[in-house]
Formats: sequence, C-alpha cells, structure tokens
Amino acid sequence: MPDKAADRVLLSVTGFNPQRWYELLSAERPVVLEPDGAADPTIRYAVVWKQPAGILAGLPNLEVIFSVGAGVDHIFADPHVPDVPIVRVVADNLTQYMIEYVAWRVLDHHRQGRTYRDQQRRKVWHEPRQPAADEVSVGIMGLGELGRAAARALLTLGFRVNGWSRSPREMDGVRCFAGQDGLTPFLNATDILVVLLPLTPATEGIVDHAVLSRLRQDGPLGGPCLINAGRGRLQREADILRALDEGLLKEASLDVFEAEPLAADSPLWTHPRVFLTPHAAATSDPAHLVPPMLAQMAAYERGEALENLVDRQAGY
Amino acid sequence: MPDKAADRVLLSVTGFNPQRWYELLSAERPVVLEPDGAADPTIRYAVVWKQPAGILAGLPNLEVIFSVGAGVDHIFADPHVPDVPIVRVVADNLTQYMIEYVAWRVLDHHRQGRTYRDQQRRKVWHEPRQPAADEVSVGIMGLGELGRAAARALLTLGFRVNGWSRSPREMDGVRCFAGQDGLTPFLNATDILVVLLPLTPATEGIVDHAVLSRLRQDGPLGGPCLINAGRGRLQREADILRALDEGLLKEASLDVFEAEPLAADSPLWTHPRVFLTPHAAATSDPAHLVPPMLAQMAAYERGEALENLVDRQAGY
Repeated sequence: MPDKAADRVLLSVTGFNPQRWYELLSAERPVVLEPDGAADPTIRYAVVWKQPAGILAGLPNLEVIFSVGAGVDHIFADPHVPDVPIVRVVADNLTQYMIEYVAWRVLDHHRQGRTYRDQQRRKVWHEPRQPAADEVSVGIMGLGELGRAAARALLTLGFRVNGWSRSPREMDGVRCFAGQDGLTPFLNATDILVVLLPLTPATEGIVDHAVLSRLRQDGPLGGPCLINAGRGRLQREADILRALDEGLLKEASLDVFEAEPLAADSPLWTHPRVFLTPHAAATSDPAHLVPPMLAQMAAYERGEALENLVDRQAGY
Repeated sequence: MPDKAADRVLLSVTGFNPQRWYELLSAERPVVLEPDGAADPTIRYAVVWKQPAGILAGLPNLEVIFSVGAGVDHIFADPHVPDVPIVRVVADNLTQYMIEYVAWRVLDHHRQGRTYRDQQRRKVWHEPRQPAADEVSVGIMGLGELGRAAARALLTLGFRVNGWSRSPREMDGVRCFAGQDGLTPFLNATDILVVLLPLTPATEGIVDHAVLSRLRQDGPLGGPCLINAGRGRLQREADILRALDEGLLKEASLDVFEAEPLAADSPLWTHPRVFLTPHAAATSDPAHLVPPMLAQMAAYERGEALENLVDRQAGY
C-alpha cells in the first residue's frame, strides 16, 4: 500500500531549465526539485532527465519513474536506479516532430538540396537527373514508436522503406530485417539510412565504419546518405568523417552527437557534406508531455496499468 | 471519319532534345518531327511543347493535340491552335515529383533550414522555437490534379491546409476558398503560400505585391513564405524582391521564373532568403509520360472518350 504521506513529485533534470515543467506539474501535484534529504519519504513519483546519480536510490516510497524523453539511456547513466516501473514519454507531438524531421532530411538528400544550393551560389541553371522516390530505399534502424511513424510518412511520400530491428518486427509496406544476420542485407539495400535506435550497451557505437561501408554504393543518389535522429552515442563520428572522405558516404544529417553540445573544434561543423542541428529533431514541449504524465499518475492511482513501460532487461 | 492515310504523330517541341520522346513514340506509331508541308494530310495527332506558331493550323486531319506538360499555356502562346481536343499529360510520376518538391520546400521553411545552415556556418549550437506542423497553415493556390495531391501529402505530414481556386472546390480536410472574394481571407490565413495555378490571362502576374502583403504576418514562422512550382509568369519577381526586403515575406522557394533560364543578373540568384531550382520540381520523364499518351490514342481509336481534356474557354 502506498504511504499516504508520499504524494510528492520529484522533478530532477539537468541540462535545461525545468521552469515550464515545474509550472505544469505543480498545477495538479505537489512538486519538489530536490528531495528533503537522501531518504525523503514524501516522494512517490520522479520525473527525470539525466538525474544526478544516486538521487533516486534512497527514496523509500518512490513508485514510478517518468522519463522526459522517448529514450531512457539518460536514466541508466545512473548506476543506482531503484527497481520501480519506468514510463517513457510518448506524445503525439514528439512523434509528429520526429516525422517532420525525418521527412525533411530524407527529402533534402533525395531532392539534392546541397547540389542546388551549390549551383545557386555559382548561378548555374542545370537540372541534374532526379530519381523518383520509388527508386530510393530508405532504411530505418529501429522500429519502435518513432521508427514506425517515420516509416509510414515515408511510404506516403512514395519511398521504398526497409526496416531493421534487434528482434523481428512486421509492418505493412516495409521490408523488415532483424538481428545480426539481417544487418548486412538491410544495409546493402539502403540508400538513405535513418537511425532511430534506442541507446543500449548493444547499440552503442553501432553506426561505425563497418556499417557505413555496407550501405548501397551503386544506388540512384550517387552514394548513400546517413540521418541520425536517435542518440549521438549510437555513432562513431570519426568513422562518419572517414566514410565521407573515402567516398563511401555521400552526405549526412546529424541531429545528435557523441558529446553535446558539439565541440567547436569538431570537423563536422564545417564539413561541406554534413548538415547538423543541435539535438532539435523532436522538441520535448512540456505543454504536450506533462498532461499524459499527469493522466498516467491518476490512472495508476485508480488501479489501472501503467502504459509505455520500459523493459529494464533490454534497456529501452 | 478519320482519313485512313492520316496515321502519323507530329512531335513538335522546342527547348529540349526530343530524342527519347521520339524513340518511345516511334515504338508504336509513325512519328515525324516536321509536317511534310504546311497542309500535311498524314498527321492525325500532335505531341507538343512550345510548338512553333502556326505549325498546327494548316493540318487538315489533325484530331488531337497532346501537351507534354501539365500546363498548356505553352500551346496557347501560338495564336493559331486549331479547334481540336487538347489532352494534358497526367502521369503518376509527374504528380509524385511535385508532391516531393512541395513537401520538401514546405518542410525546409517550416523546420527553419536556412536558420540552421546559418548557425552551422557560425558554429552556433542553439535551438530556436519550433512550431508544430498543426500550428502552420499552408495555402495552396490551384486545386487541380497537382494541388490536390500536394494538399493530401501536407495533411499527412500534419499541416493545416487551405486551398484557393477560381471556381469553388471541396476537399476533405482542406479549408477551401474561391474566387476574387475568397482571395483575401485565404491569404490572411496563410503562412506558407504554394502556387500551383495554371497560367492563363486571368492568373498572369497574380503573385504580386498586393497578394504577398496580405499573407499572415503574425504567424508562427515569424513571417510568411512563398513557394512557386507552377509557372514563372504567375509571379512578379520585382514584387517578390520588394516584399522580401520590406519584411513582408520571410523566404521564397522558386522553381519557375518570368523568363527561363533565369538571367545571370537577376538579384534572385544571390538573395539570402531565396532558394531556387531550375524548373526542376517535376521532371517530365518520357518513360512515364509516353505510355499514357499511346494508351489514349489507342482508346480514342476504339471509340472511347479522351481523358484529361483541356477546357479551351478557361485556358487550362
């Protein structure tokens, strides 16, 4: 039975200002930004983004942890996460932003945005050959909520879509590959690689030179392109730069980086075939994310099951 | 009754090499590039793009004119077009390319591509506020085949879509405006204006300063954007430049121009808030466009009705 005295929400975030989150959560719940001591008995829920290590471990009445992002690697960076349910945020809004970002970057690579911007600078009026979308295969690594939504949007835009996931998945209109055995055939069939994997010990650094060099080299775009909108530590940036310079990779759109903010001396900033955004693909807008959290707390207290639970074994 | 001797196809194009068209049409029909004299009785069909003025007028057995483009203004530039049915090209492929182009340009304006490219050049790590697609209204001028297909794609991507056409139209999910009376309310509600109108005496120069200055000024993108993928002579380029410099227009993506190729001294080439492509939004790929033309000729000869006929009165 929950301790009746435990009714407070701990809001523990680092790296951004929690003001709006605080206001929106406070409208319905008592919220604190720090526990009253290491074993604060009044805290029932924790809403976290990269919480300080150990902060959750001592709370005797903590019942549920809510992640402020779709990924939860930031939670497990803390080795002392208590064994309570962890709920990931799933908001239409977050998914919507990610669909826009992926469609935008896929279309910019497909429609040769860089070539046209170069031509405009040189005042060149020239129409390069333009493949049709149904000649181009977009390969999505990660077929969770976001990967599946992106796949649907790309199908609507006319692209061929392949998907790869750790364990087998099925999806209408998508050619699905799975596991280590499926990785090479998936990459060999991919012109534009979209990375939307969760970051786990099994996926860390997966986008390396070996993976990039297996992308389709003789496709209609004159070389494969990479889009990473997942997590920066999925990629090896030195390998991406090497693949670009060896001609194995035509272009890259990166929203995430091994270390963020990206260091000023990273060659990615100035590489002519790299487009980068500052971890901005999907904005975590608290106005859209707080209401479903509050709704889950209320449902949980009515005895209903929590949704969007993290599988601690798999790490996502 | 058709003259049995009239079985040849006249392929009359200017401005591009007709070689592939010739090959593909010749596989099924006898094709000539010029009539045998001004009153050649052997020509039954004409496949044209900006045909020389008067070339069609004298052909006694001409039965159908096929346009190589979706628009037919290039045909009526010739004042002596005989009064026979004119069929516009409608190919999935052409529509598909246009959907891609419109989605690409709308997303690049919406997702602040120019801002991020500027920031990357200056190595700035900053996330500007990003409105959601459902806060942004895309207004499509022209709800023909291409306009409607673009509207459907934009709805799928989550945008609000308004449409304007000369005569009233309806479309699921799209707020439709029509005629002169509907123009101002349509423009007042538009953040991104997409021009896909046919070029007729009534639409020539319609995208002028008066139209641009009525676009929504206090929308979520910090100013309205223009995309013209229709015809260049729909726009007044001096007015676009003036609206950009007065701050009435935030950005423009132009695929078409009053005169093509765009003159090297046009300020559009170097304007920092203009993105331009060389009339390349929708490639007229003969491999996709010739088969439906040949199919229409065969159907016509079986006594079936021609499809996609041009309304000569309306001029499109």
